[in-house]
Amino acid sequence: MKRRLFTPGPTTVPDRVLLKMAEPIIHHRSEEFGRMFATVNEGLKYLFQTKNEVLTLTTSGTGALEAAVVNLLSRGDRALVVRGGKFGERWGELCETYGVHVTAIDVPWGEAVAPEAILEHLKADPVIKAVFTTQSETSTGALNDIEAIGRVVRETDALLVVDAITGIGAHRMLPDAWGVDAVVTGSQKGLMLPPGLAFIALSERAWQAVERSDLPKYYLDLMKAKKSLAKDQNPYTPAVSLLVGLKAALAMIREEGIENIWARHAKNAEATRAAVRAMGLGIFAKNPSNVLTIVQLPAKIDGKKLVKALDGYGFTVAGGQAQLSGKVIRISHLGYTDDFDTLSLSAGLERALRELGWDVEPGVGLSAAQRVLAG
Amino acid sequence: MKRRLFTPGPTTVPDRVLLKMAEPIIHHRSEEFGRMFATVNEGLKYLFQTKNEVLTLTTSGTGALEAAVVNLLSRGDRALVVRGGKFGERWGELCETYGVHVTAIDVPWGEAVAPEAILEHLKADPVIKAVFTTQSETSTGALNDIEAIGRVVRETDALLVVDAITGIGAHRMLPDAWGVDAVVTGSQKGLMLPPGLAFIALSERAWQAVERSDLPKYYLDLMKAKKSLAKDQNPYTPAVSLLVGLKAALAMIREEGIENIWARHAKNAEATRAAVRAMGLGIFAKNPSNVLTIVQLPAKIDGKKLVKALDGYGFTVAGGQAQLSGKVIRISHLGYTDDFDTLSLSAGLERALRELGWDVEPGVGLSAAQRVLAG
Repeated sequence: MKRRLFTPGPTTVPDRVLLKMAEPIIHHRSEEFGRMFATVNEGLKYLFQTKNEVLTLTTSGTGALEAAVVNLLSRGDRALVVRGGKFGERWGELCETYGVHVTAIDVPWGEAVAPEAILEHLKADPVIKAVFTTQSETSTGALNDIEAIGRVVRETDALLVVDAITGIGAHRMLPDAWGVDAVVTGSQKGLMLPPGLAFIALSERAWQAVERSDLPKYYLDLMKAKKSLAKDQNPYTPAVSLLVGLKAALAMIREEGIENIWARHAKNAEATRAAVRAMGLGIFAKNPSNVLTIVQLPAKIDGKKLVKALDGYGFTVAGGQAQLSGKVIRISHLGYTDDFDTLSLSAGLERALRELGWDVEPGVGLSAAQRVLAG
Repeated sequence: MKRRLFTPGPTTVPDRVLLKMAEPIIHHRSEEFGRMFATVNEGLKYLFQTKNEVLTLTTSGTGALEAAVVNLLSRGDRALVVRGGKFGERWGELCETYGVHVTAIDVPWGEAVAPEAILEHLKADPVIKAVFTTQSETSTGALNDIEAIGRVVRETDALLVVDAITGIGAHRMLPDAWGVDAVVTGSQKGLMLPPGLAFIALSERAWQAVERSDLPKYYLDLMKAKKSLAKDQNPYTPAVSLLVGLKAALAMIREEGIENIWARHAKNAEATRAAVRAMGLGIFAKNPSNVLTIVQLPAKIDGKKLVKALDGYGFTVAGGQAQLSGKVIRISHLGYTDDFDTLSLSAGLERALRELGWDVEPGVGLSAAQRVLAG
């Protein structure tokens, strides 16, 4: 059976990228590697829409989140953490692991944080060194407005640190223009690669904080990574084959154009939401992200059974996490996904729902999606 | 030009493994992944010759070295570090990063540590919690006798932690039988994979130390990795494509048999040493490892020029590190290397040396190697 991947990471890897990664391995201290890595680094700056260096770590996304904490902060610092889902919670756990005092803004799952709430906290507690937030919360499908958050954080001395692991490459992100001091993504998301690499870009203000930071780090030391980058290298042996794939993926991103990629994600998300509503189901998030659609199911449909039923048609989607387990399914639009993939998924969802006894007229979701996509 | 890789990591990846990694990506929470990972974990136990679980990290080898330190020790602990090259020094740097007090045994480059010296230090300072050493020092080509070191460390309560990043899969390593408490390797070494994964196995005593450890860790938390492993998963998204390749590489290792693999490395190393001596050059290490041969060059041959000359024939070898820069070349025998690869390299070395004006009768090194290999 033909399989189709609709999970918010790993996402589908284009054949063109897969085959590059199957080429014989090159040595990470060779000139050939240096030339390749220099091209990669230019491409990453384009993807991140930043003039700052984008540093590559051989870790999953969580490794780069930890790198942000241990390189920017010092023991006993205070941090403001936006917790509106599993990934916001991770920021809090990471800070606490290193003795950073956390003030949390708890946002109901599926809602975006109010920028004013962030400003109030920062004004009430001016010693807060950094605000940690998430662009697209993959556990709830909610999108935070990083531009608006940047505007309020810039009124203070705090650093703004954004987990854009799923956001980058799906949603507009302009770190330099918006005053984002640290932004993180991972390879298996909008970058259309297998997992194994993570990326972080720091502002000039953030680099000043790195110089003051006293938290322990070795493998995740960003100063070391920056020094190696100046020689088109990495401090430790990087995941070379993934970097070779990255070069090909970044070339595809350049060819399509970042604005077009954001627009494509918006259209696929909108079409999927239209299809879902036409099938009589709901959308969980109030301010839904274009990274993924979290489908709110009626009590009579078991989310776990729906994931299994979709699997029977070759579609891999994600189930709900934590309190959403069994109550939703999560459909990704991230990465290498086009109109016709979105229509295939809508068609599969119609059939899986009918299989579970939910009354859907064949074509009703498909037509709703097609009206958005063809419009 | 056909290229041949003779560096001690990355090593050549077999086509069979490269092509597996080019298959469409699977989701790391799927049943298919779980079945694959379970097979991988059995294969890793065979490679490590241990009954204990082998944990997989998505990092390069240094990430797993750091994991050993932060999971086994606590702030203010004392550690004994064997420093006989660049990688021994890394153990010391890692310990100091986390406030662990280091006593160092400085071994001259190219020599092995005397097990008695370790015992003396441990007896003189019984509060030392752990001994950190290296099986094969890739910067010097020297082999430490881990079996003998294990014997003396077992007379004390200290833990024995071994960087076997290049050793595993090349040299006999029996952690359970020898009393090794933690042993580390990386994917781009004896495992014949691209870089991006690292592995660590802990003894029961080591797991007890993990429970007492208070050093900060999150991404490198081995307790979390162990809990996930029990469900055939990883705590964070692992490098899935590399794991798929790992399954294929471990199958090849099983087919050949670990004893045969050790014997193959011994033979290739011996043949290369014979060739090098027949060409009038020396071997740097006194107790040379079978992982790589470090060729000691006479003053009139510039090591950097020799690396370049070999490159002209398609051979990638490594130059000297730190004080050995320009004075040696490093030729790896690690991983997917057979008799005829060894002969090719010997032939290339003869030609490169002649190009640099060193008087070598064509075939003299080749014949010496062939006598070992055919014998």
